[in-house]
Amino acid sequence: MSDVARLAGVSIKTVSRVVNDEPAVHPETARRVLAAIEQLGFRRNLGARNLRRGSTTGTIGLVVEDVGNPFYSELNRAVEKIAGSYGRHVLTGSSDENSERERELALEFCSRRVDGLLIVPAGAQHHYLVPEMRAGTPVVFLDRPAGDIVADTVLVDNLGGTIEAVAHLARQGHRRIAFLGDRPDIFTAGERLRGFREGCVRAGLRYDERLAVLRAPTRENVLDAVNRLLTGPRRATAVIAGNNRVAVHLLRALTHVTPRPALVSFDDFELADLLDPPVTVIGHDVGRLGKAAAELLFARIHGEDSPPRKVVLPVHLVPRGSGEVAP
Amino acid sequence: MSDVARLAGVSIKTVSRVVNDEPAVHPETARRVLAAIEQLGFRRNLGARNLRRGSTTGTIGLVVEDVGNPFYSELNRAVEKIAGSYGRHVLTGSSDENSERERELALEFCSRRVDGLLIVPAGAQHHYLVPEMRAGTPVVFLDRPAGDIVADTVLVDNLGGTIEAVAHLARQGHRRIAFLGDRPDIFTAGERLRGFREGCVRAGLRYDERLAVLRAPTRENVLDAVNRLLTGPRRATAVIAGNNRVAVHLLRALTHVTPRPALVSFDDFELADLLDPPVTVIGHDVGRLGKAAAELLFARIHGEDSPPRKVVLPVHLVPRGSGEVAP
Repeated sequence: MSDVARLAGVSIKTVSRVVNDEPAVHPETARRVLAAIEQLGFRRNLGARNLRRGSTTGTIGLVVEDVGNPFYSELNRAVEKIAGSYGRHVLTGSSDENSERERELALEFCSRRVDGLLIVPAGAQHHYLVPEMRAGTPVVFLDRPAGDIVADTVLVDNLGGTIEAVAHLARQGHRRIAFLGDRPDIFTAGERLRGFREGCVRAGLRYDERLAVLRAPTRENVLDAVNRLLTGPRRATAVIAGNNRVAVHLLRALTHVTPRPALVSFDDFELADLLDPPVTVIGHDVGRLGKAAAELLFARIHGEDSPPRKVVLPVHLVPRGSGEVAP
Repeated sequence: MSDVARLAGVSIKTVSRVVNDEPAVHPETARRVLAAIEQLGFRRNLGARNLRRGSTTGTIGLVVEDVGNPFYSELNRAVEKIAGSYGRHVLTGSSDENSERERELALEFCSRRVDGLLIVPAGAQHHYLVPEMRAGTPVVFLDRPAGDIVADTVLVDNLGGTIEAVAHLARQGHRRIAFLGDRPDIFTAGERLRGFREGCVRAGLRYDERLAVLRAPTRENVLDAVNRLLTGPRRATAVIAGNNRVAVHLLRALTHVTPRPALVSFDDFELADLLDPPVTVIGHDVGRLGKAAAELLFARIHGEDSPPRKVVLPVHLVPRGSGEVAP
């Protein structure tokens, strides 16, 4: 509170009066105090003293894209496990791939004085977090990097994984491989597309941009892509699903497609091994991603103040059947 | 605050002093004020005035058993949708089927002044919520009822659904049907077991308690039950999975069992329709459960003060193949 007082050029008692909505503060003075509070990102601490009394335990906040997506639900679970080992609860919310909602949720968590924040960013602008970070709330980005600030980040090897998927399919003899990814503004979708292109080059295939589709993974979009790319005389004989949502829609769309293309999915998902054929995936342990990010966050919470780190977790191909078929 | 002042026998100004940690309050008086605050469940409002400034939007809290279970992830999603339409965020946490964690989380949310609480209860004792409810935080229980208080509750027809599953299997000619459910202390597991028994009686089958197993749905427990009940000369020819977690382990355990028993699962789950054979389920729209509970909560938040309601949502059998085979 003394920082606020200094910046606003008033006494601590005056800051306290403004904060507690007590009368007898000149409006201009109040305005100055509130501006100083805003500038210093002091919000988190307001009222904390009072609330602490009722609070049973510390908490960290997690912003994901969609709590309804099993990928994030597994991530959430992994984060909860680590948080639990440090005696913390996890509060989770969905951004819906909307940067404004991401911002609202993150600041909401901060105003509820979480001890730290884990964010799967929807947007590319994260300056709004700087005051919170300066005020002492550690933030770790996971699965995707922050847009325009330097911050701790844990990613998986999107590029390497997709290159490996292409190489695997090329080894089975496929020359025309399609790639169905998520929306192009999503970091992982872009990286995986880069990996697809690089993989084609490395495997000596001609990269045909008409075979790469980046769109929101709705049932309709995926069905449309299947009809255009995976049927007819010029069809691709293999397809890479850019994430688990694409894969699920793709599997449904492919039930009526003959001959069935070879398939490799980026992201493993529940029951993939029990399908017919079992689905070959680029597996990256979602649990490990959540664990690594949460461990890094708790290191920061406990005072680890080395420069921001970027961690890239390896991925590995899990051949199960769907990707091991000739054209 | 006036309630606290009245109960503690002090002025509002004194309560304010205690709340704001100001000096010049006699320790005994402070103790009395804090006791009154505790008794009145006033915690939620402490500091709210301050925090509101930094808060961008209202929030509701959701306590589920496991955010990593796709069932709850879908439920969470449905709740978020309704909350979003009312301009509210959702904070979610997992109880891990532990009543102490449920209590901690619920009170944690209350101390973070959520506008309302949705709880899938892990425990059977909910008196701890009475002060919060009296202090004006609406609470709706979903999927399972509250233990020892009268409160708004939204359930699905566990009993009717399991009776229907037994009837369906009996119509295919099955006489020995097994039931694998979750832990017996879980409300839905108990209700579904009752439905299983009642279903056997109604279908004219002898209810054999050795064919009903209620245990935590781990891979090992399910495999053990499969080996004991679904193989050998005295085996059951059909099996009902008591929930989606049991179903997933069961499907994996059954891959090496011949002849394969008929299967009906309580709860639908992603990709159930793409398995071979596609899985027949007792479907109850999880989204509808979340929606109904959230709608009820928002009605309460907006002042609806009729007596507590109990809503039971219907379920329906979805025949897909696994349940439509003769013994």
